[in-house]
Amino acid sequence: MISFYNDYSEGAHERILDALIRTNRLQSGGYGEDEYCEEAKTLIRRHLRKSETEIHFLVGGTQTNTTVIASILKPWQGVIAADTGHIAVHESGAIEATGHKVLTLPHHEGKINAGQIERLVRAHFDSESFEHQVQPGMVYISQPTEYGTIYSKAELQAISAVCRKFHLPLFIDGARLGAALVCAENDLTIADLEELADVFYIGGTKNGALFGEAVVIASPELTPYFRYMIKQKGGMLAKGRLLGIQFAELFRDDLYFDLARHAVTLAQRLQKCIEELGYPFMLKSPTNQIFPVFPDELIHQLEEKYSCSYWDWGRTDPQHSITRIVTSWATSEEAVNSFLNDLQKLTNAE
Amino acid sequence: MISFYNDYSEGAHERILDALIRTNRLQSGGYGEDEYCEEAKTLIRRHLRKSETEIHFLVGGTQTNTTVIASILKPWQGVIAADTGHIAVHESGAIEATGHKVLTLPHHEGKINAGQIERLVRAHFDSESFEHQVQPGMVYISQPTEYGTIYSKAELQAISAVCRKFHLPLFIDGARLGAALVCAENDLTIADLEELADVFYIGGTKNGALFGEAVVIASPELTPYFRYMIKQKGGMLAKGRLLGIQFAELFRDDLYFDLARHAVTLAQRLQKCIEELGYPFMLKSPTNQIFPVFPDELIHQLEEKYSCSYWDWGRTDPQHSITRIVTSWATSEEAVNSFLNDLQKLTNAE
Amino acid sequence: MISFYNDYSEGAHERILDALIRTNRLQSGGYGEDEYCEEAKTLIRRHLRKSETEIHFLVGGTQTNTTVIASILKPWQGVIAADTGHIAVHESGAIEATGHKVLTLPHHEGKINAGQIERLVRAHFDSESFEHQVQPGMVYISQPTEYGTIYSKAELQAISAVCRKFHLPLFIDGARLGAALVCAENDLTIADLEELADVFYIGGTKNGALFGEAVVIASPELTPYFRYMIKQKGGMLAKGRLLGIQFAELFRDDLYFDLARHAVTLAQRLQKCIEELGYPFMLKSPTNQIFPVFPDELIHQLEEKYSCSYWDWGRTDPQHSITRIVTSWATSEEAVNSFLNDLQKLTNAE
Amino acid sequence: MISFYNDYSEGAHERILDALIRTNRLQSGGYGEDEYCEEAKTLIRRHLRKSETEIHFLVGGTQTNTTVIASILKPWQGVIAADTGHIAVHESGAIEATGHKVLTLPHHEGKINAGQIERLVRAHFDSESFEHQVQPGMVYISQPTEYGTIYSKAELQAISAVCRKFHLPLFIDGARLGAALVCAENDLTIADLEELADVFYIGGTKNGALFGEAVVIASPELTPYFRYMIKQKGGMLAKGRLLGIQFAELFRDDLYFDLARHAVTLAQRLQKCIEELGYPFMLKSPTNQIFPVFPDELIHQLEEKYSCSYWDWGRTDPQHSITRIVTSWATSEEAVNSFLNDLQKLTNAE
Repeated sequence: MISFYNDYSEGAHERILDALIRTNRLQSGGYGEDEYCEEAKTLIRRHLRKSETEIHFLVGGTQTNTTVIASILKPWQGVIAADTGHIAVHESGAIEATGHKVLTLPHHEGKINAGQIERLVRAHFDSESFEHQVQPGMVYISQPTEYGTIYSKAELQAISAVCRKFHLPLFIDGARLGAALVCAENDLTIADLEELADVFYIGGTKNGALFGEAVVIASPELTPYFRYMIKQKGGMLAKGRLLGIQFAELFRDDLYFDLARHAVTLAQRLQKCIEELGYPFMLKSPTNQIFPVFPDELIHQLEEKYSCSYWDWGRTDPQHSITRIVTSWATSEEAVNSFLNDLQKLTNAE
Repeated sequence: MISFYNDYSEGAHERILDALIRTNRLQSGGYGEDEYCEEAKTLIRRHLRKSETEIHFLVGGTQTNTTVIASILKPWQGVIAADTGHIAVHESGAIEATGHKVLTLPHHEGKINAGQIERLVRAHFDSESFEHQVQPGMVYISQPTEYGTIYSKAELQAISAVCRKFHLPLFIDGARLGAALVCAENDLTIADLEELADVFYIGGTKNGALFGEAVVIASPELTPYFRYMIKQKGGMLAKGRLLGIQFAELFRDDLYFDLARHAVTLAQRLQKCIEELGYPFMLKSPTNQIFPVFPDELIHQLEEKYSCSYWDWGRTDPQHSITRIVTSWATSEEAVNSFLNDLQKLTNAE
Repeated sequence: MISFYNDYSEGAHERILDALIRTNRLQSGGYGEDEYCEEAKTLIRRHLRKSETEIHFLVGGTQTNTTVIASILKPWQGVIAADTGHIAVHESGAIEATGHKVLTLPHHEGKINAGQIERLVRAHFDSESFEHQVQPGMVYISQPTEYGTIYSKAELQAISAVCRKFHLPLFIDGARLGAALVCAENDLTIADLEELADVFYIGGTKNGALFGEAVVIASPELTPYFRYMIKQKGGMLAKGRLLGIQFAELFRDDLYFDLARHAVTLAQRLQKCIEELGYPFMLKSPTNQIFPVFPDELIHQLEEKYSCSYWDWGRTDPQHSITRIVTSWATSEEAVNSFLNDLQKLTNAE
Repeated sequence: MISFYNDYSEGAHERILDALIRTNRLQSGGYGEDEYCEEAKTLIRRHLRKSETEIHFLVGGTQTNTTVIASILKPWQGVIAADTGHIAVHESGAIEATGHKVLTLPHHEGKINAGQIERLVRAHFDSESFEHQVQPGMVYISQPTEYGTIYSKAELQAISAVCRKFHLPLFIDGARLGAALVCAENDLTIADLEELADVFYIGGTKNGALFGEAVVIASPELTPYFRYMIKQKGGMLAKGRLLGIQFAELFRDDLYFDLARHAVTLAQRLQKCIEELGYPFMLKSPTNQIFPVFPDELIHQLEEKYSCSYWDWGRTDPQHSITRIVTSWATSEEAVNSFLNDLQKLTNAE
């Protein structure tokens, strides 16, 4: 079986394993207060511009989203998100478990826009019974989105402007940020995110690390005691150095971007070829997740050899389903070739 | 500098790194649903007796404590713990953040006993205003305790009996369980814990793994949907296989016990020699944490070369402080020899 | 100004005030453990059939919803509700503040149906990633709904059946239950609710009491220690007798039903006459809340003399808005006549 | 039976009932936005000095404590309180249910002092592992305390000073504030509380109202959206006017103080006479709760006629128990005389 099921099916890039081996017996302090984390922060800072910006390392995405959001929101506030946002649908109620409602907006290709946010906020404060409702307290978006799409610089500037107008901190979930930063459509840099958002994170788990997310807090006054919250929410790794070692390796040179580019290139090749074979798509994604629509019969044949997310993305009609195909830093050219060859054969055989 | 500050100052035992390298490019499912986790469970099960017992892998201790306790308690209940218990003092309010009070009992050398638990429960239900108080809902103990001491089989049987009498689930924090299981005083097996407790965990982070805790749920009816809770509380690692690979290696043969034995042996040698040099102890610990009482002047000299927890364990008088010294699977004989030699010299020089 | 803004604009029915005066200096126990509460329970029990059913008195609706829902749900569960449900939109995130998501279904005239619930539950457990989502844990409906509509016995039986099939406790918000029970369309009794639901409440605040909601727990095993939860959530009135005195008076004879009948009769007269004057409605309500659609210009004129909820229920087009008109136990015939006369004049003048 | 069990055994002072009757059929807005609440605020403001101070009305004490504390604390913070504080022992874990730990200090006669607070705060921030502990975030004291004792102006100034030094908001639970303000030992005014505390409340439930607590927020920047929180925590009464009507009556002239004086005078007479009969006390209280120590045999005789809290305050030796006797605005001279006569007879008979 070859898996395109997700981008966390393997271990880590070998350079990361090497770094872990190299440092293994050296002693350091616990809980992220070590030289490796310092080095990683220094390396990431080269992509940033503001001296006050803080960097913290957490283990996983749900944990990061929960810790950041619970740190920022006041107890009477909720977080605005797309109805397809990871926090709205795929975190087992982690945000609600910290006491906060997710205020959803209908997505367009996984995205929300500045106008929607402004209308929601205005409608809230214009209501006769606003105090009986959850006050919008911050905005969460994902870059790229759960549908693989990305926000352009203009879109993000508009969202950032409306957030600042209404004093809503803006938090960007960057679980797959690498894929957004390297894709052909992209016109945003990490420094742009630092300028336009209040908090964002640079995902490691889905881009070559064993695990790990680097949280960049561009507005540290929003959560002045973030380390207490990391600990409280279970994200403070005893051997915090493991996160520093990995992120230092990813950002020592362009490894982080190279790995993302590898994944995106293969996904885009898949998308282009599948399209040429005549299959429609739920939407066109510029990153490492693509969403072709296949006949169910075809899927039953593909399932024998390729693991994809075939049945969880809905149907377009009773005979066709949306399939999610994901590539990663570890996906091989051979795997892609194999899939495309088999798909061509199956297509011709119909 | 040589560190005896804690047992998580290094990476992982080399066999674990080797296993990570060996499996690195193999693909598997995410979120702990993979063959490595299955193998690890099978290997751990060899130490267990009940077929219904469940095993889950989480990343860290605070996360594990929070997830287990929040899964079991009813919203009107609290968890009984020693006032020195990790959940009572060193988890940044993680338990309270899930809505539950920690009902503390005064410890004796880090331990609580069955009589204390029974008196607390009786006092609660005998009170005129019991419904205005937090109902005791479960019991948390640590084995070994935060003071390095251990519960004997008789003590644990008594606690277990009172817990069952009052329908209080018993949860054992085994962050350093290896050290308890291999120490000279110990008369408990993993299967005993399975029989006497409802949930316990086998700590990996502090015994040779990069990270990871194996939660053993002997009474799965207490938390029938534990995986939702792991996800909600941020403990469901995307690359869950990393936990399986590590625990499989630790339990493939006796590596887990061998590593713990190494740590305990060195700590006991330190304790014995320090005692022979005439220093008193806060208490005598049979495991890998020891607590000598040193003159502050001596500490200032030791600090130059050895990292220990010198100042956070209190003073016995204005000139003497309790020092915590911890050994681990990675502590070298040389480090111990060096410390003892220096201590002897400094002692003679006084 | 005459107010049709809500059904809590006045104090209490005079018989309730009389009862408070009559008992004022008599001493009783606190926190609802008194003879008045016992009497009220006995009187309400005459409408019930099951001996195990419990009755508790709380102060207000949001408090009741929160206390019941937080008592029943497991920490990994959410509550299914209409997207117009009070808990979904008008309780300032009270449910989320206890850690639980409100899983909304699109309403039809304020209602949801058995089929929607079944599809939601099936979709959840059929999903590949169900453990990453909030597990549906109970169902909340309002009778009458926030739109004044009611569930028929057949509809409620269907909902109850699907709830039992999937082990989902069913909770009915009866803040305005009286209005449902006495309206012309109704074919349900309090005993039917006891049979079909697990918990429901009989609203006093909006039907003649100063305040108070009588929670009927038909399945007490769902929340065996409910009084702890009442206390924890701030609903345990020190002078709990006040609730007993009021509900005893409401249920000593048919006062509760008489007061509701008064309100519904006047609302239905308003609805009929407004319709005869040619105005459309958002929907036709059989209870004490009605929703005519008026031209904005007309509303500006009505606003001078009548307080209604004119602007918070949306517009049907740029010149017309939905108005909510509410009658109560205290609404006078004169007020209704005055409104209808003025409306006729304004209508003719156009 | 005559009850000295608590100060909420009866209804309300007759002037309050009269006011409810007088206003009963007048219409007003809901949720505390009505002229009665405005009038009550104006009347209370005559005792205050700062224009920015806000006043809100809530229903009960636990609700008020929870709402205020949950509004002010950051998610990584806990509230400092005496180990006898109401929030620490008698609110069914309400504070923890909002995610916060109660950080207890040992009480002296129900009180804590400035030195204890300072030491706790310093110890927290001096600890090597402070980020692994709950950060002290505010201070809660009760005036009078749960033991009937009061803080002097000098004591409160010292506490206030240390709170401001460490940026800890100070909240005073005034459930029985009237009794403190009128007692012989008192040297504090309401305006002093406004100056020295950030939030406090003026209890109505235990001083002549049916129910109700007036929350005075002297530092409104600490909780700028308090009404959302009142709603979320279930304290926003639909007929909020009921609170305004009651507090207006209590503060229209000196009724609030007169009622408290009545209660305190009778309690002090009881205390003096019981002492003259030779009985010791747990402590001497200047307010309306007193704590004599009686032989158990005597208690068994008293129990036949007088309801007091005999068994919940502990024993001083195997034959003697601390009894709590409480007087209220409604306690009659006759009841006090009767108790004292019977006590004298029983004492002589021994």
